[in-house]
Amino acid sequence: MAVEANAMFKQFKEHSVSEFFKKNRQMLGYSSMARSLVTIVHEYVTNSLDACEEAGILPNIAVKVSRIDADRYSVYVADNGPGIPKQYVGKALGKVLAGTKFHRNMQQRGQQGIGASGCTLFSQVTTGKPIHVISATSSEKYKCDVSIDIMQNKPIIANFETLNSTEIEHGLIVEGEFADVRYDTSDHGILEYLKRTALSNPHCEIKFTDPDGKEHLFVRSTQTMPQRANVSKLHPLGLTTNDLLELAHISLESRLSSFLTNSFARFSKAKLDELKSLLPEIDFSKDPKSLAWDEAERIVSKFKDIKWLSPDASSIVPIGEEQIRSALINILNPEQINVTERKPKVFKGGFPFIVEAAIAYGGNAGKKNIDGYEGNILRFANRVPLLFDSGTCAITEAVRSIQWKRYGIDLDNYPVSIFVNVSSVYIPYSGVGKESISPETEIVDEIKLACMDVARGLQRFLSGKQRSKAFASKYKLVMRYADQLSSDLSALSGIDKEHIKSKLENIVALKYKQANNGEDEEIESMQDSGQVLQEESGQ
Amino acid sequence: MAVEANAMFKQFKEHSVSEFFKKNRQMLGYSSMARSLVTIVHEYVTNSLDACEEAGILPNIAVKVSRIDADRYSVYVADNGPGIPKQYVGKALGKVLAGTKFHRNMQQRGQQGIGASGCTLFSQVTTGKPIHVISATSSEKYKCDVSIDIMQNKPIIANFETLNSTEIEHGLIVEGEFADVRYDTSDHGILEYLKRTALSNPHCEIKFTDPDGKEHLFVRSTQTMPQRANVSKLHPLGLTTNDLLELAHISLESRLSSFLTNSFARFSKAKLDELKSLLPEIDFSKDPKSLAWDEAERIVSKFKDIKWLSPDASSIVPIGEEQIRSALINILNPEQINVTERKPKVFKGGFPFIVEAAIAYGGNAGKKNIDGYEGNILRFANRVPLLFDSGTCAITEAVRSIQWKRYGIDLDNYPVSIFVNVSSVYIPYSGVGKESISPETEIVDEIKLACMDVARGLQRFLSGKQRSKAFASKYKLVMRYADQLSSDLSALSGIDKEHIKSKLENIVALKYKQANNGEDEEIESMQDSGQVLQEESGQ
Repeated sequence: MAVEANAMFKQFKEHSVSEFFKKNRQMLGYSSMARSLVTIVHEYVTNSLDACEEAGILPNIAVKVSRIDADRYSVYVADNGPGIPKQYVGKALGKVLAGTKFHRNMQQRGQQGIGASGCTLFSQVTTGKPIHVISATSSEKYKCDVSIDIMQNKPIIANFETLNSTEIEHGLIVEGEFADVRYDTSDHGILEYLKRTALSNPHCEIKFTDPDGKEHLFVRSTQTMPQRANVSKLHPLGLTTNDLLELAHISLESRLSSFLTNSFARFSKAKLDELKSLLPEIDFSKDPKSLAWDEAERIVSKFKDIKWLSPDASSIVPIGEEQIRSALINILNPEQINVTERKPKVFKGGFPFIVEAAIAYGGNAGKKNIDGYEGNILRFANRVPLLFDSGTCAITEAVRSIQWKRYGIDLDNYPVSIFVNVSSVYIPYSGVGKESISPETEIVDEIKLACMDVARGLQRFLSGKQRSKAFASKYKLVMRYADQLSSDLSALSGIDKEHIKSKLENIVALKYKQANNGEDEEIESMQDSGQVLQEESGQ
Repeated sequence: MAVEANAMFKQFKEHSVSEFFKKNRQMLGYSSMARSLVTIVHEYVTNSLDACEEAGILPNIAVKVSRIDADRYSVYVADNGPGIPKQYVGKALGKVLAGTKFHRNMQQRGQQGIGASGCTLFSQVTTGKPIHVISATSSEKYKCDVSIDIMQNKPIIANFETLNSTEIEHGLIVEGEFADVRYDTSDHGILEYLKRTALSNPHCEIKFTDPDGKEHLFVRSTQTMPQRANVSKLHPLGLTTNDLLELAHISLESRLSSFLTNSFARFSKAKLDELKSLLPEIDFSKDPKSLAWDEAERIVSKFKDIKWLSPDASSIVPIGEEQIRSALINILNPEQINVTERKPKVFKGGFPFIVEAAIAYGGNAGKKNIDGYEGNILRFANRVPLLFDSGTCAITEAVRSIQWKRYGIDLDNYPVSIFVNVSSVYIPYSGVGKESISPETEIVDEIKLACMDVARGLQRFLSGKQRSKAFASKYKLVMRYADQLSSDLSALSGIDKEHIKSKLENIVALKYKQANNGEDEEIESMQDSGQVLQEESGQ
């Protein structure tokens, strides 16, 4: 052996999660100059929306991006949320893997405790500057600068100052300087990101000042706050053996039976009895702290044999059909909209989720290209727009698997926008950058069904539109022969030509009107006779 | 405000990186049952190859996957590497973000210190069991079980036992039990993964025993060890201000000038003088520990104005044209191979990388489908096969951006395999699961150029093949008229017909032979005359 193990392992070293993400910042979304700037806005806006929602406040968010140099910008985000108490501001913005969201079984946009600290890390690494923070809670107002001790993954707070008054009554203002970024006006840029945020958050007002100083205002399309998401208990089918064991070992219950019925969703006394009958060898009166792996494993395995009520969907807050409709009208002004909200479903057994889909046609829907239009997919997870990594996303996979031509929809050439929002307490993101949903079978299937549903709606609209057009041209054709026919009938019958013609025109008009409004069957028979008329007249 | 900030932040919590990846295991590659099993084999085999290479040992790796239950398998991987010293075994396999690779500027397959600990975490969470380890270094032999204290991200070692003898002289054996996995025989499965590993590591022998007990042996196609990768100094153009500052502050040099020339690659006295003249206001004799951000920023900024030698490519070890060729012959047995190795290039200014590409045609190249064949892309990063997340990968992006039809190659219907290996000290992976390379412009461009190069080679081969076929059919056609022409000439001249025919046939044969071997120009003129002949004979 040329090199001994002991010599090799002299290089052994531990490193902090901050160091890891400093080196692999592309994993957080800092992969290109343009995407990096979107990522920063995305992280701050997401946090603002979550905070406002949790505090029950209709969000007003101001975003300002200013150019300092070719590759250097400042980003300012202000919200009217509840603010951050001073003892938490350091860790919330200056420690990776810390926050209020990670461990709660509750639907929120953020779920990792990485985003905002990632921005601090990125600012620090590219400009050496801290993030400037102004916070106003109901009891304290202050400002300070936050940075990270990267080796230790610990926050550093500087220039802390209590304020008597702030420009905001309550809320949070963050402002940072970032280099190695670029402002992009494409549909992977900040303006598009905020437009889509407004689409999926119709209760939110967003004011955006772009680097040219131009103001873009997205007004509320509804004054209704989204329903408050509940913190939900875990569903038995969402538990791994490891989860059950960990929870049992920290439980304050004195018996395994009460631990089970009190800790998990849908766990009634009847279900407990069913479980007991399936596992007579387990003592359910024992202390949950003494639960062993193999017992927990048998319990989790038997969960699969019990018919459970689906998880409580009150922990999931979809946007709502009417809200989606008014947001789409507000922002895309399309000719036609179809919206659907599916019933709550469950993935991996225990995680409830709801899929909403809409398809907008005409107006500003779709994407303009050289040839005219093409369809585009607007992807959302818990109302957050997903602009990147579409290739690995459940939504893209589902949409692409649909044979759109069967619905008379040509995605490559029609002005259509397909809107999909997946809501869940736990979104299985493919990466730390949270830009795509891992294609779990149950989720892909639900998205597919939702899209097929709205596709059928658009199909009816388009075929109605086409039929009207076809009828109009047939009507014109038939009418062209009415004059000749009237003359002939007049010559044969001696009745006044104009009288016959007027009657004839009335009959044709009536028939076509009936057909146009009528049932499919009637229409078909009308089409047939139309066909006959046409053929006859063509002879 | 409905909810106060103080109430909300009562929920504030920190969590360990182990907890994070336990909850988000799909980010490590544990996203579907089939992929999870491949991920485990991938992590262990990658570590074995790195260890053997660093120790200068030709790797013999044995992989055995056994079915315990429908969704439960055991995985056994044994190598003949240097083993792990006992004081490091816990952290190497039982602590996320610890290892020998993360901080060294050296080309290795692993670079995160997550992979093997991720397997331990996954085993523990799905089966509650530790990983069994047997290690033999040159000085000690032992066995033990490793698991993780997830909340603390700390290793737990149990059943440690010093051994007097082991089944291996030196090396590491890991064996674990994993649930929520499935063995898959598709081209996203373990067999394909190991086949591709053998392709990109022709110096390696891999024996794989599949769950049916069938043995698959991939023999070495070369006895030559890959050249040893050097630990390289960072190139000035790969430095951020933050890097420079951090390194300056821990430097043992007493002067900024010697810190710069001794710490970085290509930093000669002449370059230092150039830098000094660009920054007369900075005192280069100062202690590097006193370097301030704005000074470091100015230095890094001026680095861009200096013409540096490219980074030393000795830190990068490509596979090599001959090695790729023999591996492709060994494993795909194709009709034709084109291989290219590009010169070292640099991305983001300071990270050198080398792209190798090959295209194999015929034999077992490509992928069989119902209609016959289609092309496939074999992606590698530092010789590690990338089977998943192709949608977000620089290699896929580059290959798809090429107009293959221009090279006469129909990727949808030809039996072609496109092989691309990107080698670098630092591969910018898109995700923690390391299954795709972030599409940095410089990398995508190099892959594209490499692929276009081998595409041209295949184009020449295919058009030669086509030309041979066309010639053969023209030759046959011309010969058909030789008999008639000989009769006519014999009648006119009185010379013996067979004599004329034999001469005629010789002339035609000779001309076609010349054309077939000749220069393009000659061929074209021959084609023209061939055309004429044909037309004449057709009259």
